[in-house]
Amino acid sequence: MLHQIPLENAKITDSFWSFYIKNIKENTIPYQYSVLNNSPSVTIENENKKDFFENQKSNALENFRVAAGMSLGGHYGMIFQDSDVYKWLEAVAYSLHINPDKELQSLADSVLELIAAAQNEDGYIDTYFQVKEPRLKYRMLYSGHELYCMGHLLEALAAYWQATHNKTALVIAEKVINHIDTVFGYENGKIQGSDGHPEIELGLLKIYEITQNPTALRLAEFFLDIRGKNTEFYAEEMARNEKDGLPVKMIKVPELKTYLVAHTQPKNMTEAVGHAVRMLYLAAAMARVVHHNNDSDMYSACKAIWDNVTNKKMYITGGVGSTTDGEAFTGNYDLPNDIMYCETCASIALAFFAYDMFMLDPKAEYMDVIERVLYNGILSGASLDGIHFFYVNPLEVNGRINDENPDHGHVKRIRPQWYSCACCPPNFARAIGSVQRYIYTADSKNKEVYINLFADSSMADDGIKIVQSTDFPYGNTVKLTVNSDSAYTVKIRVPYWSRNFSVNVNRNHCEYNTENGYALLQNVQGNTVIEIAFDTPVMAVKANSAVIADANRVTVQRGPFVYCAEQIDNAVHLAQYRVAAEDIQNASVSVENCPLGRIPFIDINAVTEHINCNGLYCYNPEISCENHKLRMLPYYAWANRGDSDMMVWLHQK
Amino acid sequence: MLHQIPLENAKITDSFWSFYIKNIKENTIPYQYSVLNNSPSVTIENENKKDFFENQKSNALENFRVAAGMSLGGHYGMIFQDSDVYKWLEAVAYSLHINPDKELQSLADSVLELIAAAQNEDGYIDTYFQVKEPRLKYRMLYSGHELYCMGHLLEALAAYWQATHNKTALVIAEKVINHIDTVFGYENGKIQGSDGHPEIELGLLKIYEITQNPTALRLAEFFLDIRGKNTEFYAEEMARNEKDGLPVKMIKVPELKTYLVAHTQPKNMTEAVGHAVRMLYLAAAMARVVHHNNDSDMYSACKAIWDNVTNKKMYITGGVGSTTDGEAFTGNYDLPNDIMYCETCASIALAFFAYDMFMLDPKAEYMDVIERVLYNGILSGASLDGIHFFYVNPLEVNGRINDENPDHGHVKRIRPQWYSCACCPPNFARAIGSVQRYIYTADSKNKEVYINLFADSSMADDGIKIVQSTDFPYGNTVKLTVNSDSAYTVKIRVPYWSRNFSVNVNRNHCEYNTENGYALLQNVQGNTVIEIAFDTPVMAVKANSAVIADANRVTVQRGPFVYCAEQIDNAVHLAQYRVAAEDIQNASVSVENCPLGRIPFIDINAVTEHINCNGLYCYNPEISCENHKLRMLPYYAWANRGDSDMMVWLHQK
Repeated sequence: MLHQIPLENAKITDSFWSFYIKNIKENTIPYQYSVLNNSPSVTIENENKKDFFENQKSNALENFRVAAGMSLGGHYGMIFQDSDVYKWLEAVAYSLHINPDKELQSLADSVLELIAAAQNEDGYIDTYFQVKEPRLKYRMLYSGHELYCMGHLLEALAAYWQATHNKTALVIAEKVINHIDTVFGYENGKIQGSDGHPEIELGLLKIYEITQNPTALRLAEFFLDIRGKNTEFYAEEMARNEKDGLPVKMIKVPELKTYLVAHTQPKNMTEAVGHAVRMLYLAAAMARVVHHNNDSDMYSACKAIWDNVTNKKMYITGGVGSTTDGEAFTGNYDLPNDIMYCETCASIALAFFAYDMFMLDPKAEYMDVIERVLYNGILSGASLDGIHFFYVNPLEVNGRINDENPDHGHVKRIRPQWYSCACCPPNFARAIGSVQRYIYTADSKNKEVYINLFADSSMADDGIKIVQSTDFPYGNTVKLTVNSDSAYTVKIRVPYWSRNFSVNVNRNHCEYNTENGYALLQNVQGNTVIEIAFDTPVMAVKANSAVIADANRVTVQRGPFVYCAEQIDNAVHLAQYRVAAEDIQNASVSVENCPLGRIPFIDINAVTEHINCNGLYCYNPEISCENHKLRMLPYYAWANRGDSDMMVWLHQK
Repeated sequence: MLHQIPLENAKITDSFWSFYIKNIKENTIPYQYSVLNNSPSVTIENENKKDFFENQKSNALENFRVAAGMSLGGHYGMIFQDSDVYKWLEAVAYSLHINPDKELQSLADSVLELIAAAQNEDGYIDTYFQVKEPRLKYRMLYSGHELYCMGHLLEALAAYWQATHNKTALVIAEKVINHIDTVFGYENGKIQGSDGHPEIELGLLKIYEITQNPTALRLAEFFLDIRGKNTEFYAEEMARNEKDGLPVKMIKVPELKTYLVAHTQPKNMTEAVGHAVRMLYLAAAMARVVHHNNDSDMYSACKAIWDNVTNKKMYITGGVGSTTDGEAFTGNYDLPNDIMYCETCASIALAFFAYDMFMLDPKAEYMDVIERVLYNGILSGASLDGIHFFYVNPLEVNGRINDENPDHGHVKRIRPQWYSCACCPPNFARAIGSVQRYIYTADSKNKEVYINLFADSSMADDGIKIVQSTDFPYGNTVKLTVNSDSAYTVKIRVPYWSRNFSVNVNRNHCEYNTENGYALLQNVQGNTVIEIAFDTPVMAVKANSAVIADANRVTVQRGPFVYCAEQIDNAVHLAQYRVAAEDIQNASVSVENCPLGRIPFIDINAVTEHINCNGLYCYNPEISCENHKLRMLPYYAWANRGDSDMMVWLHQK
């Protein structure tokens, strides 16, 4: 059985990820606490210019104080505002797990105590319903997000207990679980439905994995079974509320059950549809439950969803969700670059799903996707200062269009300080703040260890220690110093973007076999030095010709980094550049230390097209081309130098 | 002073437009009557999959019967359903003017009588408010559309009177005008505001031009002055209604005053903003009022709007409105091809505006735009059978995307039989049904006649007769047989798409001067034969490089026709074709008689790109190109052969 290396035993020492982990600890976490605690200096933006959500303050912590009776006042913010606190707490847990810090732990303990104080005696906790709408408790699962919030609470409590062994965490969790068990289930009188937004399932499973409380697993299985069993469940709920004249938040979408990913039971799902975060939190939970119950139907569904997302609905950045309308998946190969959604949370959810799939069947294809979203679509979700965040991660922006076309109203070019719907910022902190979980995986029983990602780091597990020395992602060599008590099989992921991947063992060239995308080094015992070398060529990438949006376009990837061009680096408007695949393959890389950090810029011989045309349309115009260099940088680093147009997919020559 | 040739004196005999005029008379008008009269066999679609408007029936005529007390029941349909009847009546008027028809006139007379019967004694008429919401009369100008409907009524009455001299038309009109005069105006106690949807202004002016009733002109001037004077007028109206708890239809848009084109007074407008049809009906009225009052500020505003629309915001098809959100203009050069709006009504409004600008200053640039919208963006609004209609006229459709991405929910690929918001179908009938108005213009005092468009046709005006013999738009020669009593200056538009435009007068080559894009032939008297010859080369068209959506794209125009490729004619998916400008210039034209009629197809030597790639993204793939012909046809004829993907702007080689 594969297991994750506990965070305290997987240490990152590299320059790339360490920057983020330090940044999250020193900047992001304190900043987010100040926002949740209503720092007056923060400007909170709506996600879309068309939205008018409450955005004077976060109030997330104050909502708990009100629910706990420690403060007067009402609830403020989104119906799921509680989850911002929970995700922040989870991020803190990972940070403490990696770098214990008494002061931070004391602050987090106080938040945990606040949560405990707000929790009802019966275990219920949701400040919106406790403070504002008690009579609507569990009457609006379609949009109430109570179990969604409690799911995030359980995830946070699991992580916090693992980091600190603070028993309050498990006390709160057990109360929540016992409470849910009294309300939901197949038994008569219980609610036979699940939350419109999946998440409780993951939370239940994470607590189960610590406590082995069978109720938690049973409830997770229940929620994964009942979803979509009655496809009209949510419509009936809405109709009932409307009939009773209740002031409930209706969801108006043409396909409610699809939007809520409740169009069929999870085990029968065959593709990724609906709200992307809902879909992928659900998929992650589906894969995770298979670890515990080996449900083969569920596993088949997971594989079908995986195949559909990664082969038909995923942007090259690892972004998912092609439309802002329902923040949703659309059809196969529909990947518009400028009006897409690509919510940071959805890419995070994809990483979670990929990880749970990997742990069921350790194939490189899952790690390829994890690497893709980590280095690209998730990382772009925050600025390099760690305190500004994207909700939506476009692959092409043009400021003039964005400002004046409401179809682009959700696409921002400058990361805001915070959002009225602030799901992404703390999600970024918890996902990137625990990035080391992905580097190594081990199977103590079968004596196998997986090197999934390259990063200067070390791991220690039962009977084996590995020190990985590398300058990756800047350099192309990796040295693994392995010390193992017994014969281990070391499996090293051969990345799809590498060429000439060669392995030396104790200075001898090693012919390796590959299995599921991993190079196998068997019988590694005692002290062993494994040296890996590979190329990271600049690669021209084409999308499948079914992707209409990328027709006659080409882009650039080098190693794990997808590239983009920013206007600030280029003299002519980006849309006028044209490049050929061979121009990209012959491009030069210049690693520069600049205010963005250490950036491997790529300079490509391109042409710019000029038309002798002052009007709007030009008939048989003279078209001339000029040679121009086009400069590109890794996508994750975009939008850190002010407002600048950006393009991932370049026009082809 | 320029004047239009009365419809009975401008006869079209060509094969291109005659088809439409006959089609409208024989098919469209009877069909539309049956729809307005609740034919049970018609399927009425919502404009957008996301909309849920009443669409069981039109009920437009029944609404009048109910308002007249001739029928029981309520109002059904949109708040502006009356205007469908008025636009139909106007289309009938033009048809009767061109081809008198007793049976049709008798039917139309009965509709006129029904309108008269529904009109209140005080002149008010709007069946929605008469039947359903009397207490809201003129309380919701932001969305009530009362004056909009009355404006269409006045336009219809003017046309109907001109066609038939049925006095009831002017009786109804005068009652409407006197009624409006009692309600709206600068005087204390009157409403100092205008309708959220401009249109009353055009109606008032058209009646004024017949009756010279000064009240009509004064009211038109009032509405054109009061609009945007208090920019908060509509917001205040909404707030008042909300405060009074009235069941009114609020408009929720971020920029209400801009959406309603009431962000400033018309005379101060400098660009085209907001709802495209509102903007352009307003602009047409602004230009038209200048004919009567020579208001130089207003004229300057018209010229600024014209310049902005035609040089920065118009699709090559003559479509306008880049977003479905508010059916609106967006920023300069923002012309997305696949999620645009390009409402048929907006192109019609642009033709009206262009015509009123032309009549103020007869320059070819206005006729160029009229020709562009007539042959392309308006004509695409109806199927060749005359009984199916597009609301939205895209420049690129991909069925797979359209069906599954709600951002494309407004883009249809098969013309519906009718719409819940049915503004476009009768607008098409009235606009194309009177197309001959544009061919000739005369100035009897200065003895000038303008040949604006080429079509086999004839005209007769004070002291001059012209017979135009041509096979245009299929052929390239035009013979004008002119018979004039006195010396006329004949001005012939030299189209921007022609080459080698040569003129013979009485068989002698004529060196002509051009002025404002017209070839001047002076002192034409007695019997004169003018022979014109020109080329209609296949032209490669590039958009201005500021149009991001058309970067690295090229399209095709020949004569007045913009071309598109339809999937049904082509073997490989359209997005895979790549063409060079020179391929287009060397393309061959094949005029074919096919079920679409007489179609000049264009076949271009193109290449199709193939990638050796089964996955979603391919790294350094083998890219191969195959030579393939790409077939294109005039845009107006698309979507007449079933569901087929379509592209106007082709990928460039």
